[in-house]
Amino acid sequence: MKIIIVGASGTMGSYLANALEKEHSIIRADRKSKDVQVDITSPASIENMYKTVGAFDALICTAGPTYVGPWKNLNDTTFRNGVEGKMMGQINLVLIGQHYINPNGSFTLITGALTHDPQKNFANASAANAAVDGFVRAAAIELGNGIRINAVSPTVIENSPQYFPFFPGEIPVTMQKLEFGFRKSVFGANTGQIIKPY
Amino acid sequence: MKIIIVGASGTMGSYLANALEKEHSIIRADRKSKDVQVDITSPASIENMYKTVGAFDALICTAGPTYVGPWKNLNDTTFRNGVEGKMMGQINLVLIGQHYINPNGSFTLITGALTHDPQKNFANASAANAAVDGFVRAAAIELGNGIRINAVSPTVIENSPQYFPFFPGEIPVTMQKLEFGFRKSVFGANTGQIIKPY
Repeated sequence: MKIIIVGASGTMGSYLANALEKEHSIIRADRKSKDVQVDITSPASIENMYKTVGAFDALICTAGPTYVGPWKNLNDTTFRNGVEGKMMGQINLVLIGQHYINPNGSFTLITGALTHDPQKNFANASAANAAVDGFVRAAAIELGNGIRINAVSPTVIENSPQYFPFFPGEIPVTMQKLEFGFRKSVFGANTGQIIKPY
Repeated sequence: MKIIIVGASGTMGSYLANALEKEHSIIRADRKSKDVQVDITSPASIENMYKTVGAFDALICTAGPTYVGPWKNLNDTTFRNGVEGKMMGQINLVLIGQHYINPNGSFTLITGALTHDPQKNFANASAANAAVDGFVRAAAIELGNGIRINAVSPTVIENSPQYFPFFPGEIPVTMQKLEFGFRKSVFGANTGQIIKPY
């Protein structure tokens, strides 16, 4: 299977790329990747990525920039980090990518438990995650050609201990379980699901 | 209680304004309202509205523009209708309005069942609704001075029969139940809730 991983140099993306490349052809996409470069905040850059890669079977996105910081600093400008990044970045990966993906292919986006389980400093992520969750459910009934779409929605992940203090009492998701979540989406048959790998 | 209703000339807004003005001081806000004009897609216009109105006790928003139409027409440009309108419009009403609202005041936003129950042609609204739902839950743990925030999330409403064909089998929400949903948010004590008035 030919799989594009957007965010391949990040914590999740590199783990997944290394795990899946034993069995599949992995295209690592990122702002500075050697395979193919993409800035998901730019629809033109996304279109270029797909043109460069050509037909593919699955897209996984693990890239989701948002604004993290005190509520008092949240305003229309800082809120755009998550709107343009984790939200519209991923939505545009699907809206544009549907014209390049093979029939019966799949999109797997990244959201997170903040959708339903907010934490201080992360209101921007709560909104962006929730938007992607809502989009995934809606896109699942619209996409043609057997194309599926799901989201993986972890809590804080074990390889990002810098976030632990912001998620008091939250049991970190192991990288292995996170990998299982993405496998369930890419190699399973479900669509429109928000997969919680914990 | 001094209550601003944004979207006061719309189906929901006018019903609510008429129902609540018997007991409360209602400020009707809209693009062309006589009381105070506002374009929620503009943070500057929102700031002007609050400066004009002065301190208030509750804001109700029933205005939520989104793109409605065939999936094939959904792209970064059309998607912005819901991003700038129903999503960021309402989020900015809160981010800016928190500096003008009285202590123990409340914000009540409008979302909708499309968050979890998508319909064809409405993917933009599913994402925008979900974003507002996520924001409401997150803002509830951040807002100070006893300020509360909730969303009312109806299905299709009885006074908008033009939408019935797009919601097959969906039982329309009566205007009275919708009013009850807003009353629950404004006059109750809960916060961070997505109120489903059906």
